[in-house]
Amino acid sequence: MAGTLKHFKMKNSIDYSNNTARQHLAEKYAQIRRHSEEICKPLSTEDYVVQPVADVSPPKWHLGHTTWFFETFILLPHFPGYKLFNPQFNFVFNSYYETVGARVIRTDRGNLSRPSVSEVYKYRKYVDENMCRYLAGSSYTEDVEPLLQLGLNHEQQHQELLLTDIKYILGHNPLFPSYKENVMPKKSDNQEFKMISVKEGVYEIGYQGNGFSFDNELGRHKVYLNEFEIAHRLVTNGEYLKFMEDGAYSDFRYWHSEGWEWVKQQQVKAPMYWYFIDGKWMHYDLAGLNDINWNDDLCHVNFFEASAFAAWKGMRLPTEAEWETASHLFNWGSRWEWTNSAYLPYPGYKKEAGAVGEYNGKFMVNQMVLRGASEVTPIGHSRNTYRNFFQTHLKWQYTGIRLAK
Amino acid sequence: MAGTLKHFKMKNSIDYSNNTARQHLAEKYAQIRRHSEEICKPLSTEDYVVQPVADVSPPKWHLGHTTWFFETFILLPHFPGYKLFNPQFNFVFNSYYETVGARVIRTDRGNLSRPSVSEVYKYRKYVDENMCRYLAGSSYTEDVEPLLQLGLNHEQQHQELLLTDIKYILGHNPLFPSYKENVMPKKSDNQEFKMISVKEGVYEIGYQGNGFSFDNELGRHKVYLNEFEIAHRLVTNGEYLKFMEDGAYSDFRYWHSEGWEWVKQQQVKAPMYWYFIDGKWMHYDLAGLNDINWNDDLCHVNFFEASAFAAWKGMRLPTEAEWETASHLFNWGSRWEWTNSAYLPYPGYKKEAGAVGEYNGKFMVNQMVLRGASEVTPIGHSRNTYRNFFQTHLKWQYTGIRLAK
Amino acid sequence: MAGTLKHFKMKNSIDYSNNTARQHLAEKYAQIRRHSEEICKPLSTEDYVVQPVADVSPPKWHLGHTTWFFETFILLPHFPGYKLFNPQFNFVFNSYYETVGARVIRTDRGNLSRPSVSEVYKYRKYVDENMCRYLAGSSYTEDVEPLLQLGLNHEQQHQELLLTDIKYILGHNPLFPSYKENVMPKKSDNQEFKMISVKEGVYEIGYQGNGFSFDNELGRHKVYLNEFEIAHRLVTNGEYLKFMEDGAYSDFRYWHSEGWEWVKQQQVKAPMYWYFIDGKWMHYDLAGLNDINWNDDLCHVNFFEASAFAAWKGMRLPTEAEWETASHLFNWGSRWEWTNSAYLPYPGYKKEAGAVGEYNGKFMVNQMVLRGASEVTPIGHSRNTYRNFFQTHLKWQYTGIRLAK
Amino acid sequence: MAGTLKHFKMKNSIDYSNNTARQHLAEKYAQIRRHSEEICKPLSTEDYVVQPVADVSPPKWHLGHTTWFFETFILLPHFPGYKLFNPQFNFVFNSYYETVGARVIRTDRGNLSRPSVSEVYKYRKYVDENMCRYLAGSSYTEDVEPLLQLGLNHEQQHQELLLTDIKYILGHNPLFPSYKENVMPKKSDNQEFKMISVKEGVYEIGYQGNGFSFDNELGRHKVYLNEFEIAHRLVTNGEYLKFMEDGAYSDFRYWHSEGWEWVKQQQVKAPMYWYFIDGKWMHYDLAGLNDINWNDDLCHVNFFEASAFAAWKGMRLPTEAEWETASHLFNWGSRWEWTNSAYLPYPGYKKEAGAVGEYNGKFMVNQMVLRGASEVTPIGHSRNTYRNFFQTHLKWQYTGIRLAK
Repeated sequence: MAGTLKHFKMKNSIDYSNNTARQHLAEKYAQIRRHSEEICKPLSTEDYVVQPVADVSPPKWHLGHTTWFFETFILLPHFPGYKLFNPQFNFVFNSYYETVGARVIRTDRGNLSRPSVSEVYKYRKYVDENMCRYLAGSSYTEDVEPLLQLGLNHEQQHQELLLTDIKYILGHNPLFPSYKENVMPKKSDNQEFKMISVKEGVYEIGYQGNGFSFDNELGRHKVYLNEFEIAHRLVTNGEYLKFMEDGAYSDFRYWHSEGWEWVKQQQVKAPMYWYFIDGKWMHYDLAGLNDINWNDDLCHVNFFEASAFAAWKGMRLPTEAEWETASHLFNWGSRWEWTNSAYLPYPGYKKEAGAVGEYNGKFMVNQMVLRGASEVTPIGHSRNTYRNFFQTHLKWQYTGIRLAK
Repeated sequence: MAGTLKHFKMKNSIDYSNNTARQHLAEKYAQIRRHSEEICKPLSTEDYVVQPVADVSPPKWHLGHTTWFFETFILLPHFPGYKLFNPQFNFVFNSYYETVGARVIRTDRGNLSRPSVSEVYKYRKYVDENMCRYLAGSSYTEDVEPLLQLGLNHEQQHQELLLTDIKYILGHNPLFPSYKENVMPKKSDNQEFKMISVKEGVYEIGYQGNGFSFDNELGRHKVYLNEFEIAHRLVTNGEYLKFMEDGAYSDFRYWHSEGWEWVKQQQVKAPMYWYFIDGKWMHYDLAGLNDINWNDDLCHVNFFEASAFAAWKGMRLPTEAEWETASHLFNWGSRWEWTNSAYLPYPGYKKEAGAVGEYNGKFMVNQMVLRGASEVTPIGHSRNTYRNFFQTHLKWQYTGIRLAK
Repeated sequence: MAGTLKHFKMKNSIDYSNNTARQHLAEKYAQIRRHSEEICKPLSTEDYVVQPVADVSPPKWHLGHTTWFFETFILLPHFPGYKLFNPQFNFVFNSYYETVGARVIRTDRGNLSRPSVSEVYKYRKYVDENMCRYLAGSSYTEDVEPLLQLGLNHEQQHQELLLTDIKYILGHNPLFPSYKENVMPKKSDNQEFKMISVKEGVYEIGYQGNGFSFDNELGRHKVYLNEFEIAHRLVTNGEYLKFMEDGAYSDFRYWHSEGWEWVKQQQVKAPMYWYFIDGKWMHYDLAGLNDINWNDDLCHVNFFEASAFAAWKGMRLPTEAEWETASHLFNWGSRWEWTNSAYLPYPGYKKEAGAVGEYNGKFMVNQMVLRGASEVTPIGHSRNTYRNFFQTHLKWQYTGIRLAK
Repeated sequence: MAGTLKHFKMKNSIDYSNNTARQHLAEKYAQIRRHSEEICKPLSTEDYVVQPVADVSPPKWHLGHTTWFFETFILLPHFPGYKLFNPQFNFVFNSYYETVGARVIRTDRGNLSRPSVSEVYKYRKYVDENMCRYLAGSSYTEDVEPLLQLGLNHEQQHQELLLTDIKYILGHNPLFPSYKENVMPKKSDNQEFKMISVKEGVYEIGYQGNGFSFDNELGRHKVYLNEFEIAHRLVTNGEYLKFMEDGAYSDFRYWHSEGWEWVKQQQVKAPMYWYFIDGKWMHYDLAGLNDINWNDDLCHVNFFEASAFAAWKGMRLPTEAEWETASHLFNWGSRWEWTNSAYLPYPGYKKEAGAVGEYNGKFMVNQMVLRGASEVTPIGHSRNTYRNFFQTHLKWQYTGIRLAK
């Protein structure tokens, strides 16, 4: 891969004739694209291919799909004379854009041995070189920048998914191979638990400003909040162990009806990646099968579990408005924090025309909002107005719990 | 059944020694219980038994389950010396109360030919007579009244379900038998469509007062609303036909992603009970297979369809706070109106201890709120603070659409 | 029903003008038709309606379907001027005849409350009266007799199914209602186990004669059999209990691979209708929940269980050719006996043209042959050439085990 | 891989001190093992990993599983001091041997990126070197030879599966990559269709001799056959096209009931690998997407299709006894030929003790026998007594049709 990247850098050093904004954009593009490939460096070719469950995509699919985004939405319509790398790739790498035609069904992504990993890297290189020429050339106009920023943020979202999907692929393999030693920052110990109080009143939430945001954050608007309290830190592994040891996984009183069905049907007993081996709980982290640091922030629970834990504590999860309003009062960014807010449009939400309009709005049903960011979120890709969302049974993301009452 | 009811009335004319409140309660009890049986009068014995889909319960199960509620939560704990009619009925007629023990799984309700219909009516009579004696006697104390009111409101909810389930049973039978002629009120024609404007500001929603309400309506609280418009009447059958004729069921742009999967998988083309026969749309109503009144309020659409229709119109569904705030400005009560609010707890919501606490809270995930009432809601069982809720794919209730923007 | 039957008898006493063969046929018709209704006499109306699993049909469906057979294949094509009782009944009561058009899908039979039970009895009476007139009249010709005999044998097959399905409906109800006391003959004790030897050689099997037989028995043909031994009596409940107590349900070595999957997935531990209550095994028979007679013939095991039992004993199941060849050497008729022969056509098998050809041939794949008859087989409906067949996982019929080696 | 093989050859040239039988065995071992790897040479690493449907295993799994067979059944019990390559590989590479412990469930084989392809080749090399030392050394005794022969025949079976699975993986990829040009022999044109007659009488079938055979072929025994005719060649693509064009896929009369359900549910219209592109039928063969040779033997139909084709022709499929008896009268070996015989034990069949006994007997239910061999069967791995077997819906093997009557 080294060759690829060096070559790309050279091209990137093109003269932007004093246009520092475009140069900055091109450098940002190069840096973000490179980072996706760096994430994949520790992988064996085989790791790029598999899809153990529907929600996890093969790493080579992520690499191809993010590339397809730039090819389809920027190069094809905006760069005159651009020739598709391979016309069949639209079928292979389209994720869910109905506007853009037929596609491999999601659960089939792991059944495709071709295009090969090296072919996908060639595809990336081809598109990157064309993007580079496009950004330096005369066909580029400023109205394309929002689309480009969307493409870059989209790639960053997939960088986080790459890491969570790689973790799933390796962490569910019976050999428990390590992805990389020391990939995660050493956590300092968690402090004593305490609650922060916020007064009743009218507050404002939502994104406002000149930077990038997704359409679902837009429309800064007033909300009325009752007085509430919110925890100044996340729930730890040790605190969750107490919940388990108290028999909470077999006590229906703490669970939503749908969550209780999930627990019974799946026979759930612990967070994802926790394994009970020779009389003690261990977990798979990206370095392999290891001891659990009980003082560290709990990770890999779904909404049902987060909600049941809060009920067991006699508390609740915060709403997303409470979370955003109080977010300057605590540290966040280690885990995506489940809220008790359903993922719904803000007042005045309008989805954009065309394929880009499929980005957020069509998922606004039967999912819950998560706020914050996680230790695998790319740097520069977090805001306190960011609205992440997942279905209530999913737990392969870096998800945790912050209590409220 | 006539004999049963007469007998019951006699018992009910017991002397309440000037205690008019209790007498009033006993009469209300008798009246509501009688109404459930009146709903079933047009049925053949066979109609009481079947369960064509999981969501529809056999009418005899509704009759038994509502009776079990009074036996289990009032007579057994509060009426000394009360003897269960049949100890096995708890297993048969418990719906979802984990607190109260094992039960017939929901999808098996239609597999039970026994207890027979006449046995269920004997059960009702036995429990009614005991309730009557209990209410007139010395063991009754006023702190039981809330439970009794809950039982009566619970029975009223099942009266509506009885009618919707009977409609499903008969309306999906290939012979399309009639339940009863003229069961539904003749609708006057719908007026011209117009929107009502409501100003931005802080409003209050939620139940406050001395009457009965469910726990999920409690906690009257402030909400901040942006300025909005809401339709003064519901969408009509004719308007929905235009949506169909415009090809909206095959245009993904109007649908949530999950709704679009539902449309494709189920090959949906129309509201429930609409049949395309000899070149024209007809529908099953409780009187049989009949012509559609195009001017009447649309009925039997699910959340996905309601939401897609609004998108096709370039509008949206109201939130429940908007609906409640504006509800004094329009007529409602013909259809349960889908809102774009997820079913979540109000600020400060606390579920009660014990089995009664299972009534509402545990369903507060992955369902949407419906507001208003329908033409099959029992009289006296509607409030503008009432929060009905169903999963997004369900459409066998009397559900309709009110637009907002 | 008494009235119905009396009325029918009167009609049946029509003058056959010395045609005793036809009179005999008409009487046989009346007797067999009457017997189906007698089987249903102990039922409550509700028992006629339900279908707890796909393989079990509602009793009213059996009554209607056997009637539909005579209406569709005899009256409609052969009785000039015959008017259908209800044109929609073809849709309701067709079982699997593709030739005869669309039909209610099998798993929906229990979702139909209409036609009501009394309507089905009216249908029977109407068809019976017409059959009676047809048989006495001038339009009857002798070439229709085979079809009529097929219809009567078909009705007898459904008489057995009526009893096995009623047993399933009542025996899986949590109240375990009794169908009838003393319905089954008192069994004399089983004798000591011994094997009968049969010499190697060429034998003939298959039906030959002037009586009725199904097409699948026809084509008497030679088979070569190696020397074999076959048990002179069936396996008893007590012998099967030893198999259970020896842990055979958790020892894969005795099972086919597909049977082992079935055991694990369904968590099977005993024959159907056996319940472990207060420390001992009991079973549901048609008289209710009762003690097991350990000396009686084992009943309600499927092919996988029969085969595993034989393997545990170090023996095997007989082939159907062995069974038929040796059948004059032992008593049979208490249980349908699983053989290790797949249900396949005999040499020279030809399926008949038209709908009647769908009777047997199209099921000749992935089913095993059972030989003999059972205690619920109608009198006069058994032959030692009879080939019954079921899928390998089914056990709601009166099935048992005869060992061979 | 070249290195691996050369290295292995060197080791193999050990001195067998005049023991030519053992030397011959060791050479056969080396040759067969090498052939499996040669089959995989055209693959990319990614092709080794995927499992698009449950019946298809990833090529690296085949390579590992056949190796595990020798390690588990020969080296571990018979070669003193042998150390497992990796103790966890038993879990990964056990296919269905319950005797040998827990294993990766079949549908998960394609979810495992590790062990990597190169690790699997290391595993093969390690086991091959040990086998080589074992065969040349003093611990080898002749009673192990049958096991070794079983292992080699097992590996040959997987060589055929490797090719059929590779064809599935590449032939269902939207890019239709080629495996290898000219992999299949050029077929000479098929001759005119004619039938061969065989006289009625007692015949013998089953394996007898000193060579290798599977336990399911053993027990040569007499069978009585009626006179029959059998086709002297297989059905061609062109003949099958006529069946399709005659509408046979939408005419229930030709199909078993279970086959008809399969056709409707899967919307089947053609053999596997046939694609209708731009107005004509093409097919994927191992060289890519190509024109169909209409004169070539039909391939990739399942039992339902074979049986329906025969019915459409007014003929039938032969039984396995007919096939074996007549097999010296026609050419065979191009396609596995569906018979109308269920896969059942021969008279006197005994399964062997221990894990090896799981090889055949436990699959003797609900499968049909195929006779002959196919163009991807390894040379030296076919006999006219060979009993192949598959479930009735499967068609990814090289299966064809020979008619009989």
